[in-house]
Amino acid sequence: MSASVPPRRVVVLGSTGSIGRQTLSVIAAFAPHWQVVGLAAGRNITLLAEQAERFRPDAVWFQGAETAGWSGPGRLQPPEEMVSRPDVDTVVVATGGRAGLVPTLEALRAGKAVALATKEVLVIGGPLVAEAVLAGRGEVRPVDSEHSALWQCLDGEADGVPAPGWGRPLVPGRFSPGRISRLILTASGGPFRDWPPERLHEARPEHALRHPTWRMGRKITVDSATLMNKGLEVVEAHWLFGAPWDRIDVLLHPESLVHAFVEFADGTIKAQLGPTDMRLPIQYALSYPLRLPNADLPRLDLAAAGSLTFCRPDPDRYPCFGLAVEAGRLGGTYPVVLAAADEAAVELFCEGQVRFTDIPALIRWALETHRPIPNPSLSDILGLFDETQTRVKGAVQCRRC
Amino acid sequence: MSASVPPRRVVVLGSTGSIGRQTLSVIAAFAPHWQVVGLAAGRNITLLAEQAERFRPDAVWFQGAETAGWSGPGRLQPPEEMVSRPDVDTVVVATGGRAGLVPTLEALRAGKAVALATKEVLVIGGPLVAEAVLAGRGEVRPVDSEHSALWQCLDGEADGVPAPGWGRPLVPGRFSPGRISRLILTASGGPFRDWPPERLHEARPEHALRHPTWRMGRKITVDSATLMNKGLEVVEAHWLFGAPWDRIDVLLHPESLVHAFVEFADGTIKAQLGPTDMRLPIQYALSYPLRLPNADLPRLDLAAAGSLTFCRPDPDRYPCFGLAVEAGRLGGTYPVVLAAADEAAVELFCEGQVRFTDIPALIRWALETHRPIPNPSLSDILGLFDETQTRVKGAVQCRRC
Repeated sequence: MSASVPPRRVVVLGSTGSIGRQTLSVIAAFAPHWQVVGLAAGRNITLLAEQAERFRPDAVWFQGAETAGWSGPGRLQPPEEMVSRPDVDTVVVATGGRAGLVPTLEALRAGKAVALATKEVLVIGGPLVAEAVLAGRGEVRPVDSEHSALWQCLDGEADGVPAPGWGRPLVPGRFSPGRISRLILTASGGPFRDWPPERLHEARPEHALRHPTWRMGRKITVDSATLMNKGLEVVEAHWLFGAPWDRIDVLLHPESLVHAFVEFADGTIKAQLGPTDMRLPIQYALSYPLRLPNADLPRLDLAAAGSLTFCRPDPDRYPCFGLAVEAGRLGGTYPVVLAAADEAAVELFCEGQVRFTDIPALIRWALETHRPIPNPSLSDILGLFDETQTRVKGAVQCRRC
Repeated sequence: MSASVPPRRVVVLGSTGSIGRQTLSVIAAFAPHWQVVGLAAGRNITLLAEQAERFRPDAVWFQGAETAGWSGPGRLQPPEEMVSRPDVDTVVVATGGRAGLVPTLEALRAGKAVALATKEVLVIGGPLVAEAVLAGRGEVRPVDSEHSALWQCLDGEADGVPAPGWGRPLVPGRFSPGRISRLILTASGGPFRDWPPERLHEARPEHALRHPTWRMGRKITVDSATLMNKGLEVVEAHWLFGAPWDRIDVLLHPESLVHAFVEFADGTIKAQLGPTDMRLPIQYALSYPLRLPNADLPRLDLAAAGSLTFCRPDPDRYPCFGLAVEAGRLGGTYPVVLAAADEAAVELFCEGQVRFTDIPALIRWALETHRPIPNPSLSDILGLFDETQTRVKGAVQCRRC
């Protein structure tokens, strides 16, 4: 690897998950320029120990570490402390659900670059993340392929033309909202894209987990089948780029090769394309503002790709999408309830306790029965998240007895 | 129109041709911020007079103006003088063939922005144009939809990483060749894309002039049918972006909605898309570095576009493409002979004097029988261009008698 690879000292939160493992493979490709300073995982201590043996971090953490021992390399240090270490420059947040929020806020307050893969962080804590970026001069670098694509299409599109209605972006780089007409996220449409809507209640976890183009974790795969994932991404895009809601669109694109489009004020459309391999956006988030060649990564052969198709999603087939965007627009604690209810409902679905079509029904019920808290604090958000999960699971148990 | 429209004082060379007329319609949309200072045409004096009445230029010119009179608005001034007037900032070069070269050089030496639509200028005079840019600090802004797309995908992709083998770009804006893996131009493939190659000798002018996606002038439409147009564009891309030959690729894309791709060092691909309407790249060349909304221009509806397809061109079906790239690589006077022989052969084909398949045969003959001049001067180039046209036409007449 050439000397032009910039040094990076990285903490990876969620290192044993799908994104975490791919992050480590990218870091390995750029060793010794890129080093792992800290690793944090959930319950997969066996894999964490293997990762620690290989990457020799200074700090490690896992769920239950407070009371358990650790005999591997590195010393135990909670994520909230790990991310603000002075020897760290970049924090990859790839935990499941709400666990990413507090370390993201701490990292940003400490001025770090946060490579953010956990959608829920911005969905449940958008205003807090925006405040933390302002307070600490950190920055959020999107890892989701769609937001990475938007970020790449926007960077450099700057002319200082102001645009009312746009908020302060959280991503680094230069772009002027006055140039932007629309941000367009693509969605594969998931495995049920061609199922008759009246048969969707028959969809079982093994169907939902068969994603047509991407290999990902369980939760996000089911979220792709309901299009909740794309709804969460609309909320994320709102916060990452400061985009007004009516400037964010979604197109179904079954081939998943175009990750996003930006339409500019003059009608020009830019797109970012790449193979369906998360290592590419992960690497860009780490290498930014450079682009680095990496022989491990596949290349997209456009001539071999066949045809690229696009269409509008059918709202009746994907009620979760509309719920997510509506909750995002309402703001306050609505997106918190949305994300928590979705997590609980997907878990219940994967356990075979509810049907696929119960997922949007449970989320809608949770939103409709929620009493909003204006300007929620961090503890309001975390409390409400847990409470909503309990409430949704309780409702299902209650229904069954 | 808002006050954020920058002022432009424009000379349009080739104002009565397809690009010239569209340029004037774009300028009209941004009046009074954009003004026409000079108009030059070929033989269509009736239309030139109408344009002069409408746009009230200070200077006009047409073929034969030296000896003819002019009673319309403005005074007669030759293009070479018109383009270096101190009250002009932007020169649109949209003449046919070699006529664009001298005014382009003069405009660049005078430090103007040249919005370049005439491909032959860079094909026959690449090194001279590069010298003129250096001498006068002018800049070349591509108008071809493909090069405009490359320019838009590249601008802002800068990190200072050097790249051996790349030349000095002629376009404004910032990009680092070290980030670039490949420039990919798209081609519709023309009306004969699906004809059996053994039937191509039957192709008549009325078939060749039926372009599937773009409405353009005669010469460029036939050049699209032979793929010569794309070969000339490869040579143009070499000069505009300083790209080594092996970094420029072509893909057939029958729908003509993606105008070009750039593949970067990390495998990311960016694309620029837009409706098949030349006013969009014309406007970008004039408005750069701004993007301006223009209600006259159509928008591309991706959901309505159906599918986008890409494949490699078949070299046997398109021999002109290979001849063009080969002449570009050889450099010196080879591209001059190529462009001149093509212009003569297309003219003969349109007059019904030679068959479609004679076009590449005549060009190949002209290249093979050419004695190269190293480091040709401007007068070498212009002389050789005319001489080659006479030679090709003479060969056909000789064959007929």
